[in-house]
Amino acid sequence: MKESGLVFIIFGATGDLTKRKLIPGIYNLLNHNGIKKFHIIGAAKDPMNKDKLIDSSKKFIKTKKPKLLSKLKKTTGYLQLDFNKSEFTKLKSELERLEKKGFQNKIFYFATGSNNFEIISEKLKKSGILKNKSGWSRVVFEKPFGSDLKSSDKLNKCLQKIFDEKQIYRIDHYLGKELVENISIVRFSNAMLEPIWNNKHIENIQIILDEDFGIKERGPFYDTYGAIKDVIQNHMLQLLALITMEMPDSFSGDSVRSKKAKLLQNVKIKKTITGQYDGYTREKGIARKSKTETFAAMSLEINNKRWKGVPIYFRAGKYLDKKETKIIIRFKKIKCLFENTCPTKGNELEIRIFPNEGISLELNTKTPGESKSTPIKMDFCHSCVFGPNTPEGYENLFKDIIKGDQSTFIREDELRNSWKIIDKVKRGKLHKYKKGSKGPETKFMRNIIK
Amino acid sequence: MKESGLVFIIFGATGDLTKRKLIPGIYNLLNHNGIKKFHIIGAAKDPMNKDKLIDSSKKFIKTKKPKLLSKLKKTTGYLQLDFNKSEFTKLKSELERLEKKGFQNKIFYFATGSNNFEIISEKLKKSGILKNKSGWSRVVFEKPFGSDLKSSDKLNKCLQKIFDEKQIYRIDHYLGKELVENISIVRFSNAMLEPIWNNKHIENIQIILDEDFGIKERGPFYDTYGAIKDVIQNHMLQLLALITMEMPDSFSGDSVRSKKAKLLQNVKIKKTITGQYDGYTREKGIARKSKTETFAAMSLEINNKRWKGVPIYFRAGKYLDKKETKIIIRFKKIKCLFENTCPTKGNELEIRIFPNEGISLELNTKTPGESKSTPIKMDFCHSCVFGPNTPEGYENLFKDIIKGDQSTFIREDELRNSWKIIDKVKRGKLHKYKKGSKGPETKFMRNIIK
Repeated sequence: MKESGLVFIIFGATGDLTKRKLIPGIYNLLNHNGIKKFHIIGAAKDPMNKDKLIDSSKKFIKTKKPKLLSKLKKTTGYLQLDFNKSEFTKLKSELERLEKKGFQNKIFYFATGSNNFEIISEKLKKSGILKNKSGWSRVVFEKPFGSDLKSSDKLNKCLQKIFDEKQIYRIDHYLGKELVENISIVRFSNAMLEPIWNNKHIENIQIILDEDFGIKERGPFYDTYGAIKDVIQNHMLQLLALITMEMPDSFSGDSVRSKKAKLLQNVKIKKTITGQYDGYTREKGIARKSKTETFAAMSLEINNKRWKGVPIYFRAGKYLDKKETKIIIRFKKIKCLFENTCPTKGNELEIRIFPNEGISLELNTKTPGESKSTPIKMDFCHSCVFGPNTPEGYENLFKDIIKGDQSTFIREDELRNSWKIIDKVKRGKLHKYKKGSKGPETKFMRNIIK
Repeated sequence: MKESGLVFIIFGATGDLTKRKLIPGIYNLLNHNGIKKFHIIGAAKDPMNKDKLIDSSKKFIKTKKPKLLSKLKKTTGYLQLDFNKSEFTKLKSELERLEKKGFQNKIFYFATGSNNFEIISEKLKKSGILKNKSGWSRVVFEKPFGSDLKSSDKLNKCLQKIFDEKQIYRIDHYLGKELVENISIVRFSNAMLEPIWNNKHIENIQIILDEDFGIKERGPFYDTYGAIKDVIQNHMLQLLALITMEMPDSFSGDSVRSKKAKLLQNVKIKKTITGQYDGYTREKGIARKSKTETFAAMSLEINNKRWKGVPIYFRAGKYLDKKETKIIIRFKKIKCLFENTCPTKGNELEIRIFPNEGISLELNTKTPGESKSTPIKMDFCHSCVFGPNTPEGYENLFKDIIKGDQSTFIREDELRNSWKIIDKVKRGKLHKYKKGSKGPETKFMRNIIK
């Protein structure tokens, strides 16, 4: 039997995402023997050639093997396509040609603005491309998926007319990161954690997504969305859901997604602080009087039995003093009877997503030569144990799409619940902050978040 | 006001312990500014001079500072004294001379065989040395303190006629080790540990005291006592008590000792395996047909609410494949619903007393690129964090004696409870084992203890 081949069709192939993430992701998959027989079709409205397409990704590929790069070039095609004007006849005939050669499975990757999701989907349908005879067709949508509950619902309704929910992969690349995929494994394979994973023992949970750079080429996009919709609605709420959801029945299929959706149903934002770095409104693609936030800090709460009363803190921002993504679980301080030897803080479990991927646990231990306690870190450094070549976000997610495993993609109800949370944000004053700082200097959270 | 000086009187000054541990301990105390005004009097029946006494310790002192070594020589005296024959008049007049110079406090250190404890104590009393006018007198007894409950009781009764229990320091140098002193701090300053520190969450507890050397110069002594009385009755039961006792009201005074004594009351040995290494009976000072064990492995249980049903395993032996002292708390495996991803073992907390002092926690984490779990170690390396010059056992204990803190010394009831446990040991067959091996090859425990 002939191995069934795979075609990656990338809409928005000349964009930043394709260059930085998608091509490198496919390259890594190839390098780790995750795919063999495949073809890439890039499509966008600008002129471009396939060699340039691959070359522009080169600097984002870590282990460059000339043989693999040349294989990538050989198996890539480019199609100039104005999604609004052109019909998809050329794409159709190209796909039919490949189908005859045994490339029957198709991944349609929507690396475009969400304003193009509907038109492309409709044209895919109209052209008959989706009438697959033997293989499967799966569609992948990049965030943002809508800009509020209403627009997200509208978009979903439209897509669900064209695709089956089983075909739809709403991607959140954070869910493909090893340390994020690790969260459920750590939570549910370590018996010692379950008894203390609740409001009786946890003081607070902090999720941090600090960036030390600005909006790059994403001016117009970013100015429409801002920090809250760019990273909190998706990445950070997903991290929160993984950290706090109840135990799923299995790690695959819909179990995890059901537990996450259920958790998100009970999340409420209590307070929001927003900020904008100095000079933002003078940047390319930004409205001169823009009130878009480039920083947000929040406190949230989860109204269920496990988490009632445990404050959740979020912080996300551009141009802060460092680039760091981490989750901190701070346990309550012990009720200490011992003068002098009482620890100054509770235990902390830290999951570092970037940089220095790993997990550390802060325990109080004896100060040598004295009978008092000092907090020390017990560390698990991911790359020290498993080596530096851990699969990255997109590669892991491509693997899941090929397998047909939707568990690491956002289901409609999760998405709706996230937007319901975010729709209720109450924005107060927009605080200015200096580039390279720790964000706006407000009292709120200054002493709480590390 | 003049600072009150301290005299260390060491009975058994020509012995191994003085050379290896006591002089180096005093040196370290001096080096870390733990004492300033002090004088040492060595006493034993053999001829010896004070310079030789210090010099013989040199190789057991880590950071040799010539200035301190010469200070040590200047402040040391030696007295030839046959404890059975001589009266203590010379010692008395020397102490009176020093007292006039401001050395009023006295530590009498019994580094002799326990057969000399009574006679020395009686002579101390008879000579009037203990009638201290201004300072304090404290007496320190090295193990073994008796050889069973009966002899230990007899000895205690005799000593208590002469000394107050507040003056008596029954030393177990394990209790002075940083990582051992750390046990209570770790247990009671980390809120996350208390909820899982019980039979609901702990699978078993293992205490290992492996040695890769033999009986050295201790032939006659060792042959009388054997592994069980040499290390299990004292060190290992003490470690067990610290790991499993209830929370004391404070770290000082009698609180810890009361909790340890109470715990030991409920300990019972379930099974004992003994072994003797090949060639033991041909060694110096050993009876040719000796049945003394140089290896013992045991399972024990604690009959209280917290520990009922949790097996405790001990292993101790001479001439095994490595020198290692550690405690392993193995947590129960999780009730795992997930095929493939279920961890193969429970979490483990390991307290390493020697070598590589530290604590590690084994957690199950995600295998990169696969959705299954791999155990990884999160480590706290004591010397990496606190540097290599951590005070050692004897130094810490000397400090406590000087402070008058008895909490790290064995109280009479703890001692009695330990002997009660050990008196009930049922010895079966004495298994032979090869030097450098893992001990006798019996089924029992082979698969349990690491």
